[in-house]
Amino acid sequence: MSDQAAAALWPDRPADAQGERTETARRLLLAAVDSFARRGYHATTTRDIATAAGMSPAALYIHYPSKAALLSEISRAGHQATLDLVLAAAGAPGGPVERMRRLVEDFTSWHARGHTVGRIVNHELHALPEEEFEVVAELRRQIEEAVLALIRQGVASGAFDVQDIRTAARAVTSLGIDVSRWYTERSSETPEELGRRYGVLVLRMLGSTA
Amino acid sequence: MSDQAAAALWPDRPADAQGERTETARRLLLAAVDSFARRGYHATTTRDIATAAGMSPAALYIHYPSKAALLSEISRAGHQATLDLVLAAAGAPGGPVERMRRLVEDFTSWHARGHTVGRIVNHELHALPEEEFEVVAELRRQIEEAVLALIRQGVASGAFDVQDIRTAARAVTSLGIDVSRWYTERSSETPEELGRRYGVLVLRMLGSTA
Repeated sequence: MSDQAAAALWPDRPADAQGERTETARRLLLAAVDSFARRGYHATTTRDIATAAGMSPAALYIHYPSKAALLSEISRAGHQATLDLVLAAAGAPGGPVERMRRLVEDFTSWHARGHTVGRIVNHELHALPEEEFEVVAELRRQIEEAVLALIRQGVASGAFDVQDIRTAARAVTSLGIDVSRWYTERSSETPEELGRRYGVLVLRMLGSTA
Repeated sequence: MSDQAAAALWPDRPADAQGERTETARRLLLAAVDSFARRGYHATTTRDIATAAGMSPAALYIHYPSKAALLSEISRAGHQATLDLVLAAAGAPGGPVERMRRLVEDFTSWHARGHTVGRIVNHELHALPEEEFEVVAELRRQIEEAVLALIRQGVASGAFDVQDIRTAARAVTSLGIDVSRWYTERSSETPEELGRRYGVLVLRMLGSTA
């Protein structure tokens, strides 16, 4: 299990008036991640999730009206976390080469560390309720746009040499996302090593000579 | 639906003594592909598949003892088809550059045309019965090995310049496989165009100057 990454999405909060409610919601989200990953979303029941969190189904419903509500929160959090790291890399000091290297390193290592969450948020999109799907689709567009804009910057400055910017951007995000399909804790590289290697491959793909 | 690609896995046979049995099995396989793609494997029942094929569940059981047997046959056929095209490209006339270009073009366009089957065979691996999983894992190893061997050939001949051969091979297959996650009939490129563009990107990634 790589729930280290899932746990990082919903960090422990200091105890306050909301403390207990937050902690219960957090336990349910982590139990839902684990259950969806094991059985797939469709075959998971709210009872499975409640049991994994050590609660009754009734206690679950106090926090989430349905398993779709849990999937929605997991999907939003996962997409927001990856958008945040993409925007941080795209706005970092340095030129397009340094920014793209950081973007690929961070995006790749996130999908390796968070392969359990990554699989759920990328493979269960069709199961989201329509309004939630729209929210997540907008986050995905922003990720794609940030990658596109960075490639355009690099082409404009002469750092990159790319014939088809849209296909190149698609390949960059696709390589990172697919890591969550195949990466396991038994993989030979650490998430950080994989990120560095993918950074080198992507810069070559973009025609960088740096 | 891109069941053009699924249909190609189980071509119509000329009518003979076995003709009717083969045609029924084929209808069931195509109905299973469609049902698994819509609902996910776990949430699909044998009744769903039988209904989609216009049969009774009893008629289904004459051909397949379980939905796992259908998944197994779909998964074997999909993996065998991709292994066949990988081996054909790796053994084609020309040097490593021409062979790799053809490999990426064919592997990519197969996963675009066959995105429905591609998603099932790549995302439902964990649902296979253990012995079937071993068969499919062996086909996957052969695909990975063929890509590795071709990269090694190119490095030995000086056509490629790759630091980490295993990671590069992983990136090549990952890019192609992930096409089945995101490609739809609404995508702006045809499967063949996408294949050509990915061929260019991969050759660059491998340090080819051709």
